[in-house]
Amino acid sequence: MTTSSASLLTIFGATGDLAQRMLLPSLYGLESDGLLSPSLKLLGTARSGLDDAAFRDFVAQSIAKFVPAELQRETTLQALLARVRYQPASLDDADSMRILAERIRSLRDGDVLYHMSTAPKFYEKACAALAEHGLAGPGTRVMLEKPIGHDLQGALEINDGVTRSFDEDRVYRVDHYLGKEGVQNLLALRFGNVLFEPLWNARHIQQVQITAAETVGVEGRGDYYDDSGAMRDMVQNHLLQLLCLTAMEPPSQFEPTAVRNEKIKVLRSLRPIGRNEVASETVAGQYVSGAIGGQAVPGYLEELGRGSRTETYVAMRAHIDNWRWSGVPFYLRTGKRMPRRCTEIYLQFRAVPHSIFARGGAAAEPNALIIRLQPEERIELQLMHKTPGLDRSGLRLSQVSLDLDLDEEFKHERRRLAYERLYLDALEGNGTLFVRRDETEAAWQWVDAIRDGWDRAGVMPKSYAAGTWGPNAAIAMTERHGHSWRE
Amino acid sequence: MTTSSASLLTIFGATGDLAQRMLLPSLYGLESDGLLSPSLKLLGTARSGLDDAAFRDFVAQSIAKFVPAELQRETTLQALLARVRYQPASLDDADSMRILAERIRSLRDGDVLYHMSTAPKFYEKACAALAEHGLAGPGTRVMLEKPIGHDLQGALEINDGVTRSFDEDRVYRVDHYLGKEGVQNLLALRFGNVLFEPLWNARHIQQVQITAAETVGVEGRGDYYDDSGAMRDMVQNHLLQLLCLTAMEPPSQFEPTAVRNEKIKVLRSLRPIGRNEVASETVAGQYVSGAIGGQAVPGYLEELGRGSRTETYVAMRAHIDNWRWSGVPFYLRTGKRMPRRCTEIYLQFRAVPHSIFARGGAAAEPNALIIRLQPEERIELQLMHKTPGLDRSGLRLSQVSLDLDLDEEFKHERRRLAYERLYLDALEGNGTLFVRRDETEAAWQWVDAIRDGWDRAGVMPKSYAAGTWGPNAAIAMTERHGHSWRE
Repeated sequence: MTTSSASLLTIFGATGDLAQRMLLPSLYGLESDGLLSPSLKLLGTARSGLDDAAFRDFVAQSIAKFVPAELQRETTLQALLARVRYQPASLDDADSMRILAERIRSLRDGDVLYHMSTAPKFYEKACAALAEHGLAGPGTRVMLEKPIGHDLQGALEINDGVTRSFDEDRVYRVDHYLGKEGVQNLLALRFGNVLFEPLWNARHIQQVQITAAETVGVEGRGDYYDDSGAMRDMVQNHLLQLLCLTAMEPPSQFEPTAVRNEKIKVLRSLRPIGRNEVASETVAGQYVSGAIGGQAVPGYLEELGRGSRTETYVAMRAHIDNWRWSGVPFYLRTGKRMPRRCTEIYLQFRAVPHSIFARGGAAAEPNALIIRLQPEERIELQLMHKTPGLDRSGLRLSQVSLDLDLDEEFKHERRRLAYERLYLDALEGNGTLFVRRDETEAAWQWVDAIRDGWDRAGVMPKSYAAGTWGPNAAIAMTERHGHSWRE
Repeated sequence: MTTSSASLLTIFGATGDLAQRMLLPSLYGLESDGLLSPSLKLLGTARSGLDDAAFRDFVAQSIAKFVPAELQRETTLQALLARVRYQPASLDDADSMRILAERIRSLRDGDVLYHMSTAPKFYEKACAALAEHGLAGPGTRVMLEKPIGHDLQGALEINDGVTRSFDEDRVYRVDHYLGKEGVQNLLALRFGNVLFEPLWNARHIQQVQITAAETVGVEGRGDYYDDSGAMRDMVQNHLLQLLCLTAMEPPSQFEPTAVRNEKIKVLRSLRPIGRNEVASETVAGQYVSGAIGGQAVPGYLEELGRGSRTETYVAMRAHIDNWRWSGVPFYLRTGKRMPRRCTEIYLQFRAVPHSIFARGGAAAEPNALIIRLQPEERIELQLMHKTPGLDRSGLRLSQVSLDLDLDEEFKHERRRLAYERLYLDALEGNGTLFVRRDETEAAWQWVDAIRDGWDRAGVMPKSYAAGTWGPNAAIAMTERHGHSWRE
């Protein structure tokens, strides 16, 4: 199947929070860099009864509010607004859907991209309505926001529902982590350099840690979050995506099928963790009141205003049972109210097999590679180096870091929003950075088994003070195996 | 044989230029850091008829002149001077040698280290005189300055002469490059890190370049230099030492025999370059007038004041015929009047076996590791990285450097003189950083064959303008094989 650049982007839920903060500013960014096809039109739709002019005002206000001032140009804004249309519609109102379909048909001049920036429960119905009006055939594609379901069963239902209208290869599931520069750079580092691949395996790597730490709590989102928890909200999607990109075999091309075939192989190689393993291989936590950056913050239950067993923290010890990674633990952790915001992948290499400097008492610490994605993008390689100066007992070693702060290195480049990359790719029909059906389902399958294991084994989240790195049990989990969390 | 810290250091040629600029400031540095044994005495000797007081004045003046002002402390100077004695002696005057021997005997209280900071032609005679007076037996060691001979024959004569009085394991041949922090750090990097060893071979390395470039010409040293040339002055010792440390197998311990056994294996694996190979594998050059840093400088022949065929530049393509390095060219080059002063080792890795990003036109440049020794110490790892920003055609790559400026990293540490390390080791009886007899002889053997090849093949040095990177032929030599000199 060949695709061409879309002539129309239709955003469902165009007046929502995500649209305002991320989607419209991203489209502005693409406009600003001349990356939108000249003929592309943008059609917003939602229940609100706006007309084109009123929605253009909304767009202009979103840009004014969420695009950094130094990037704002009146000409760019006008160019973007000239593309913009709005059509109110409600899935409960068949007439409104018919009118929307007519509007789409009148605006399109080639491929169409739909973006479902709505609650997942509406995906199936919206797709069915488009299909009903003959707008889901070849040349159309649909972008779906996460979460794809709440568990495997939910994901199957959504995926089945959507693919009744759109073939799988025209479904673009967003994991916005994949739109981040740093995540794509992980692929560039692994496969654009000959240095790493010979070392990227169980023979040379001792352990891997993938951390996504937030300082925020749940604040106003308590009800939504409480229904989800850290495992569904972060592990099932973002952390497992990072795990896949870190662990996968080299794809033959940087193209959708090749890359996603390698990712699914990783997910399918994850060793199941069930009832008998959850106690030793996972730790769930829930924050109580504490302090972050000298500021007192309330506990999760206070923020929520009621009792709950939902985890706001997960740490786990995963294994990928294949030749490359046999025996290497992948420690995953994510939590709210951590001491600092940080997303990073840490690969610790094995120790030197024999220290030639042993007589001088020089213990070589293991090498490590750190790929930091947030808050700044940074690559750091920890090496041992001769301690400068003289020592009677011989040559002593100390640790140094070769590092590269990519924000600093490329400071003349503005930092892109994840949706700029994702929109550009989806508009062009390139699904490499989107998640395939089988990936979401394999991820849910693994995660569901753990959650089920917690239930059966009666695992309750352990409390941790806000502003700490999680429950003590998470430390015990790695230390039992001689490993330490990086802090 | 066990050694203990020397009780006496006797410097022959103690009033010479090397003593003044390097040896005495180095001893001051060791004193300053409390690294000299409390009971150590220093005895200077030379032909000059000084007494203790006059030599102490000479020492004080050397320190005042050649130690950076911020390091000068009166208490340190006094502590050093309190160790200092002087005894005039001449090898032509047996009486003076007998008196010197008595002085040595009266000062020593254990091991003695002799340092021959004189012309090599005096080594044998001085050693014989010490032996004659019973001062060359167990518990004594002798440090020899380079050059050990002018060719293999000369080296054999000197080594034979010295070892008639001192066993080989008590002979410490100086190559002051081995005293440099950066050179020792090369060993720390290779053998203190698990990262490099799996990559450090012909399978992953495409080519190695070892460069020692000077901006100076021969100035006042023309007559000495003209008798020697770049091959003998730089390649035979410093460049081949760097080659050995770069290429050697891991020794089992960082101790003299283990390290030197590995170095000699490299030297003995060097593929001979003789009459039939010199034209394709070597380039000799001689500078003519030019400009460095905007300053006009004269040519070699003008500086010398007469005609000469001596090379002031050598480039060569060496091969180490063993399993690890089969097929990997080691390009060596050294020259005077280069555009900038620089000593570095550059390892270029092979290209990625297959580019997964090829569709986007992203050509991955090969990775490289650069170990810079002079003028600053620096480690740089050149990697490919995702070019920031968006690109319709996919993921593009650009080159970035992870680097570490060791002078900056350890700026609170003063930079040591090479002789501080060398003296400390020789005083302690640790020969790891000194050159063994077989190494000097193997190096000469290889170098002599090339020089002989030049003679037989009638190779004349090609001219290059001062301030350039040598004759064009040196560029042609690497480019023929698809490699480029790093500039």
